[in-house]
Amino acid sequence: MPIVSITRIVKFNAAHRVYNPSFSDEENKRLFGKCNNPNWHGHNYALEITVEGEVDPGTGFVVNLADVKRIAEREIVDAVDHKNLNLDVPFMSGTIPSTENLVLACWRVLAPQLAPARLAKLKLWETDNQYVEYDGR
Amino acid sequence: MPIVSITRIVKFNAAHRVYNPSFSDEENKRLFGKCNNPNWHGHNYALEITVEGEVDPGTGFVVNLADVKRIAEREIVDAVDHKNLNLDVPFMSGTIPSTENLVLACWRVLAPQLAPARLAKLKLWETDNQYVEYDGR
Amino acid sequence: MPIVSITRIVKFNAAHRVYNPSFSDEENKRLFGKCNNPNWHGHNYALEITVEGEVDPGTGFVVNLADVKRIAEREIVDAVDHKNLNLDVPFMSGTIPSTENLVLACWRVLAPQLAPARLAKLKLWETDNQYVEYDGR
Amino acid sequence: MPIVSITRIVKFNAAHRVYNPSFSDEENKRLFGKCNNPNWHGHNYALEITVEGEVDPGTGFVVNLADVKRIAEREIVDAVDHKNLNLDVPFMSGTIPSTENLVLACWRVLAPQLAPARLAKLKLWETDNQYVEYDGR
Amino acid sequence: MPIVSITRIVKFNAAHRVYNPSFSDEENKRLFGKCNNPNWHGHNYALEITVEGEVDPGTGFVVNLADVKRIAEREIVDAVDHKNLNLDVPFMSGTIPSTENLVLACWRVLAPQLAPARLAKLKLWETDNQYVEYDGR
Amino acid sequence: MPIVSITRIVKFNAAHRVYNPSFSDEENKRLFGKCNNPNWHGHNYALEITVEGEVDPGTGFVVNLADVKRIAEREIVDAVDHKNLNLDVPFMSGTIPSTENLVLACWRVLAPQLAPARLAKLKLWETDNQYVEYDGR
Repeated sequence: MPIVSITRIVKFNAAHRVYNPSFSDEENKRLFGKCNNPNWHGHNYALEITVEGEVDPGTGFVVNLADVKRIAEREIVDAVDHKNLNLDVPFMSGTIPSTENLVLACWRVLAPQLAPARLAKLKLWETDNQYVEYDGR
Repeated sequence: MPIVSITRIVKFNAAHRVYNPSFSDEENKRLFGKCNNPNWHGHNYALEITVEGEVDPGTGFVVNLADVKRIAEREIVDAVDHKNLNLDVPFMSGTIPSTENLVLACWRVLAPQLAPARLAKLKLWETDNQYVEYDGR
Repeated sequence: MPIVSITRIVKFNAAHRVYNPSFSDEENKRLFGKCNNPNWHGHNYALEITVEGEVDPGTGFVVNLADVKRIAEREIVDAVDHKNLNLDVPFMSGTIPSTENLVLACWRVLAPQLAPARLAKLKLWETDNQYVEYDGR
Repeated sequence: MPIVSITRIVKFNAAHRVYNPSFSDEENKRLFGKCNNPNWHGHNYALEITVEGEVDPGTGFVVNLADVKRIAEREIVDAVDHKNLNLDVPFMSGTIPSTENLVLACWRVLAPQLAPARLAKLKLWETDNQYVEYDGR
Repeated sequence: MPIVSITRIVKFNAAHRVYNPSFSDEENKRLFGKCNNPNWHGHNYALEITVEGEVDPGTGFVVNLADVKRIAEREIVDAVDHKNLNLDVPFMSGTIPSTENLVLACWRVLAPQLAPARLAKLKLWETDNQYVEYDGR
Repeated sequence: MPIVSITRIVKFNAAHRVYNPSFSDEENKRLFGKCNNPNWHGHNYALEITVEGEVDPGTGFVVNLADVKRIAEREIVDAVDHKNLNLDVPFMSGTIPSTENLVLACWRVLAPQLAPARLAKLKLWETDNQYVEYDGR
């Protein structure tokens, strides 16, 4: 049976500040530049959620995308949209809110909720010019 | 010799209805929601066709994209553009026209026509928010 | 007081057939080409809804976009999304479902519902390569 | 002599909170919904800057876009990029940071700096789904 | 009768060098910077062609877009695609190939060919970050 | 430790001519069609640079994207932007400037400069409709 992947994109926007509280102000400034602004800045994020599996002959679907969308909105969008990633989001608590750490946290949240569908990849855009990807390795 | 992949995108639009004639109306409605409208709906599709191979030192090409485009237009676009995926497309006959089944059918049609060039991946967008991918596994 | 315009984009997909029942089959084919397929075809549409006015000093808004979105979804998206423009949409009844006629019908539906906010322009994309605009003239 | 317009797009990202300090918390919540989050949220903004005039026969230019870019970066991007629109931006001080007020402030800043080139329109995107426009009226 | 506009987008790519042969090398360098490279550079252009008029009740069309496309390909795309704007394009001969001059030349070529349809606007993208517009004034 | 990839996109535009000087004019024309224009043509290119590795717990970063951007601009953009790929770019010298050969040359230039960060993939867009990818195999 062939393995097909299917992807749903969800969007949200959020504020954050990239810094490490255990570093000095100078070190934070040197490492994180403008992203270290103590008054925050923000982004429109887009998250591509890819699920992989065999095609069900009864539905023609790997997974019902309506389910993926519902789970993504409940678990991710409701938690981060119009929020502050440093202050408001339980699953980011204690983490530097880099795009890398955000995509890893989304994986930890989504993978068990999507099961038995198999989460295969997350691609998270922070701006038009940069994105991160994680595939569970 | 390094292996490079090269991708050409073609576009088409089509009508379809996602349903399984062996299911009851209620079951079809429950499974497929709005996509089950008996009067059809439609999409602008974009198909990314990826061919992979060594670079020919004489041309600098893995494959001549003009050939990929010609084959894709003859085999796919002419068959599905401004058509009804349930009624008009021989290679979709007897299949639920989900995006998953459409990408698998495109693979079966394109892979032998592109040979000896090696089809490596197809990525099929149904809307700005969702796509499927198949790599021949 | 300066006049600012603000625009919200909504998306929907639909099937249609462009033809005139009072013309012969040959004339329909000559005029409408592939768009005349009797088994329908379809598109992903995007509608840009522009409202214009003075900025309210209490809110900083010309209009609350949440209201524009709610009205657009109730009046337009619910009526046309995953529908057949020829068969399913009351406000298109008896009209050739060209993009021009669809944008005019959207204007007739939206303008009174958005009042007292002043609808200033509609821009309707049928594909990535074509759109129509209407500003009430 | 024909009048041509030319447009340069610049991008920035920022945090903001949409609220009116003279309203109650309940009123702010009712009016501004998620945008009223006291811990901020943010966006990737894109600003389209349109200058209009006759074409100089010596250069073929209405205006040298390198000058438009330099002025836009110095006057706008340096002031708002990776900043908090409520706290960090002098030209937004005392203003509700709605998209409407932000585009008006950009106009007030840019129009005299671009002179004698004639600023004709600003279009400011806050997300992929919404934008405002101002043309000096 | 309402006035609707309809737009078709065509794409082409071309090489050019922006310089004025009556200026010194230093002056050309100062005015045109990197665009003055004597060995040329190039762009992917997109031209949005907007025609305006009443909607024909027999067709639902302002103009048949198939005609606009055919005329645009014959008059513009065939002349400039994969060409050098300074050396290969008769209608640009003797002109500095700035985006402004290119859009004016496209207007002069297209307006009479599209008649009796009324050309209302041309918008020409040179990169994702800049475009010019001309409306016949 | 999970492996995350992070991607930065840089853009440039350039002229080129695709031909093989050891072939006859007829053979060049047959193989390369419009791309063989002796007066050149050009494109807006976009290069997606993907680096892969473990996330540094101190920064939350796989790599500091500011470093990737600085290296990409110094090594690639400064060498090819507003240049002629056949005449002006040392690292393309003696090579047919196909997209395939350009992406391989970018890899040879970038991989050692980015080390110890691990270059994982390059994706190079030549137009909206075509791109190549290389992952070091």
